Amino acid sequence: MTTTVSQELLPTGQPLDAARAEGERTYALDRAHVFHSWSAQEQITPMTILASEGSYVWDGAGNRMLDFSSQLVNTNIGHQHPKVVAAIQDQAAKLCTIAPQYANDARSEAARLIAERTPGDLNKVFFTNGGADANEHAVRMARLHTGRYKVLSRYRSYHGGTDTAINLTGDPRRWPNDYGNSGVVHFHGPFLYRSQFHSENDQQETERALEHLDQLIRLEGPNSIAAIVLESVPGTAGIMVPPPGYMAGVREICDRYGIVFIADEVMSGFGRTGKWFAIDHFGVVPDLITFAKGVNSGYVPLGGVAISEKIAATFANRPYPGGLTYSGHPLATAAAVATITAMEDERIVENAARIGSEILGPGLRGLADRHPSIGEVRGLGVFWAIELVADRATKEPLAPYGASSPAMNEVIAACKASGLLPFANFNRLHAVPPCTVTEAEVREGLAILDSVLAIADAHRNS
Amino acid sequence: MTTTVSQELLPTGQPLDAARAEGERTYALDRAHVFHSWSAQEQITPMTILASEGSYVWDGAGNRMLDFSSQLVNTNIGHQHPKVVAAIQDQAAKLCTIAPQYANDARSEAARLIAERTPGDLNKVFFTNGGADANEHAVRMARLHTGRYKVLSRYRSYHGGTDTAINLTGDPRRWPNDYGNSGVVHFHGPFLYRSQFHSENDQQETERALEHLDQLIRLEGPNSIAAIVLESVPGTAGIMVPPPGYMAGVREICDRYGIVFIADEVMSGFGRTGKWFAIDHFGVVPDLITFAKGVNSGYVPLGGVAISEKIAATFANRPYPGGLTYSGHPLATAAAVATITAMEDERIVENAARIGSEILGPGLRGLADRHPSIGEVRGLGVFWAIELVADRATKEPLAPYGASSPAMNEVIAACKASGLLPFANFNRLHAVPPCTVTEAEVREGLAILDSVLAIADAHRNS
Ligand SMILES: Cc1ncc(COP(=O)(O)O)c(C=O)c1O
Ligand SMILES: Cc1ncc(COP(=O)(O)O)c(C=O)c1O
Repeated sequence: MTTTVSQELLPTGQPLDAARAEGERTYALDRAHVFHSWSAQEQITPMTILASEGSYVWDGAGNRMLDFSSQLVNTNIGHQHPKVVAAIQDQAAKLCTIAPQYANDARSEAARLIAERTPGDLNKVFFTNGGADANEHAVRMARLHTGRYKVLSRYRSYHGGTDTAINLTGDPRRWPNDYGNSGVVHFHGPFLYRSQFHSENDQQETERALEHLDQLIRLEGPNSIAAIVLESVPGTAGIMVPPPGYMAGVREICDRYGIVFIADEVMSGFGRTGKWFAIDHFGVVPDLITFAKGVNSGYVPLGGVAISEKIAATFANRPYPGGLTYSGHPLATAAAVATITAMEDERIVENAARIGSEILGPGLRGLADRHPSIGEVRGLGVFWAIELVADRATKEPLAPYGASSPAMNEVIAACKASGLLPFANFNRLHAVPPCTVTEAEVREGLAILDSVLAIADAHRNS
Repeated sequence: MTTTVSQELLPTGQPLDAARAEGERTYALDRAHVFHSWSAQEQITPMTILASEGSYVWDGAGNRMLDFSSQLVNTNIGHQHPKVVAAIQDQAAKLCTIAPQYANDARSEAARLIAERTPGDLNKVFFTNGGADANEHAVRMARLHTGRYKVLSRYRSYHGGTDTAINLTGDPRRWPNDYGNSGVVHFHGPFLYRSQFHSENDQQETERALEHLDQLIRLEGPNSIAAIVLESVPGTAGIMVPPPGYMAGVREICDRYGIVFIADEVMSGFGRTGKWFAIDHFGVVPDLITFAKGVNSGYVPLGGVAISEKIAATFANRPYPGGLTYSGHPLATAAAVATITAMEDERIVENAARIGSEILGPGLRGLADRHPSIGEVRGLGVFWAIELVADRATKEPLAPYGASSPAMNEVIAACKASGLLPFANFNRLHAVPPCTVTEAEVREGLAILDSVLAIADAHRNS
């Protein structure tokens, strides 16, 4: 008997056998030394990733998997886009890092490209390392601009992991971090499928959700509220696209009470919804936009706040009391320049829009026709959620709010076993491939979902 | 008359004239679109940086300047270290980004190299993007580990720009961000030159500062205190090396009351003091170490928390409620692997120690002999402060606490005009070159300081 040596190569050109052996060492060291986020450390068995390319990643055994998660919904431009890789390599050769107080070409150029794409007069950019600190700084700007402290944000939202950001968050990850002193008040946003307002249609949901927000502000005291922080389309919490008129109504309420409107576009921005920013679907201009992820697809850590002229003026002659060592990091901003430029040149935002309206949206709706475990399909662009239920009539979710369930775990395991990397949260599967995803790849993903949803169907209440 | 074309080249090989023209565009775009940290936006004129190499940077006019700041005290390995640049380029080609829940070789290897260097059993590493979020997460771990909320930190300290981190901070940048609800109580650390305790020597300062801390804890309620956060050597606040016995005393106090000891090594770690961690000078093992900057010299944004086995065990079977998209970012951790390896191979930490004890320390003390404006010289490794005073007897500072002054502005401008980039804070100049700095470069810097300190001397009270 002869030993078979795998001739397969990873996209890096590395032979699979060597990579697999390396992967075993990687896993052992991970378990010995890496402390993982959001996890009970001894209850996890991290999947090893050996390589990635386009819409695919390779696991520790060398299996190719279709990335329908875009990792944490950040690789909008796909994995290892050659132009972004080359730009990082070039910038690394030129200048890796320089302190925030200097002027640097990559930083300047990234700020220009972002400011050109943000709506209205959001012409100044404060760079951070990620989404959480972007929200921390946006809230700070709003507090100092208004001289008020309290901030409103919605239930069913995620805004980041640092203290203020996790307290803005309206999901169970806030609970262990909520000491009742963050100055955040949560309200209900529009979500027709599970309406808090007993609405029967979008128009009612918009009207009632706005009325609720207005009432809450009047009961909390309009003069005590600095900002409303709102994901333009809430992402992790379930991709609830706001119904027509809602975002414009929030803008109007903010104007009425002198409240700063902060649109969190960390997940929804930079092409995800088929436009540069999700808020562009609603024709609304917020006062601040926070971004991260898609700005450079997370190839180098980067986030930031796009700032209106009015708020920037508050800090024209008064120091802005915030900063960080890596604000406007050259390598990170060079990656943003390359990413935005490639997205423009290759019409990647347009691709996301077309895939959403022609392939992914219709495809998921088609699955809903065949699978009674699907309670609702919603989304736009390459930003879709399917809500799995044990009973379509009662809408009882297949996992309770804030938890997983054996049924959901089975579904997720079946996805992976079938070569699909999903983004899952509670009772939902999100279909959030890169904005560069092809029609064929979407069809491949839909076919896998079609097969695994039989498991969900079987788990319905009898 | 013929036009002279500069034949000079930047270290990148770019002709200076072309780079200068680019620099003008960079500056214009910066003023139009970049919102700078810690600044009144219309009162700044950022210096453009065109290139960097080793201990030098090149300004917008093409002047080479000796970087005695290491930017924000982060480029411990110097600018554009070829091995780190190459590692970033290689990792970019291989795998730029992958989500935190997976096992990845760069992440695993960086965690191993860090855990091997941290003292005691700090064997697990939670990666963040920078220093501020490292401190945010360390405080969270301490709060959940102890079930207590309050945190003690010292006056004259800096811990970062996000909300919890800036409230830990004991410098005026906290003031506009302090709403009195962060759960942080500040205490006085040892600082013999401006002793709060009327001490006459190090031993007294240690005893009295520890007695003060112990008293404060007993008055605040030991069972209400989760953590003491302390820079092993306070950096931005003035490089006050703790006197013998102090850090051991803090460790003993923490043990007595069940308080978590968090050593902030964001600035002092990774070679800056001539050891891997500053706390190694004191033979003390804290429960958590926060790091950033030197871990990869800031070539790619990275920070983290090194965690003791005891605290990691708290999250063995209970989820740690914190995270971020870029935790353990492959590009950032690959830069850390290359940085730590190069520092080891090239004996860069040893270089920092030798430069400090043989050249930089003695050189600065020599300046103090000649310049009566120098009130004190203190530091170790490549981590030194000179405190400028209007009067040696009264110790009246050359700029008030929390501000600049015309005298200090003149000194700083003269440094820059003479080709030296200093790190300045209030009435202090810090001499904090890369750990790779050569003897000749240090002598060049000392000579420039020698010449500009005449200005400070002239500004003394008459
Ligand atoms: C809407 C939104 N805001 C903020 C964040 C936090 O970003 P980061 O993880 O980079 O801190 C996220 C991350 O998922 C997000 O989805
Ligand atoms: C001691 C210390 N802690 C924390 C920080 C914050 O680090 P960052 O700017 O990366 O958030 C700094 C930055 O200067 C620091 O010096």
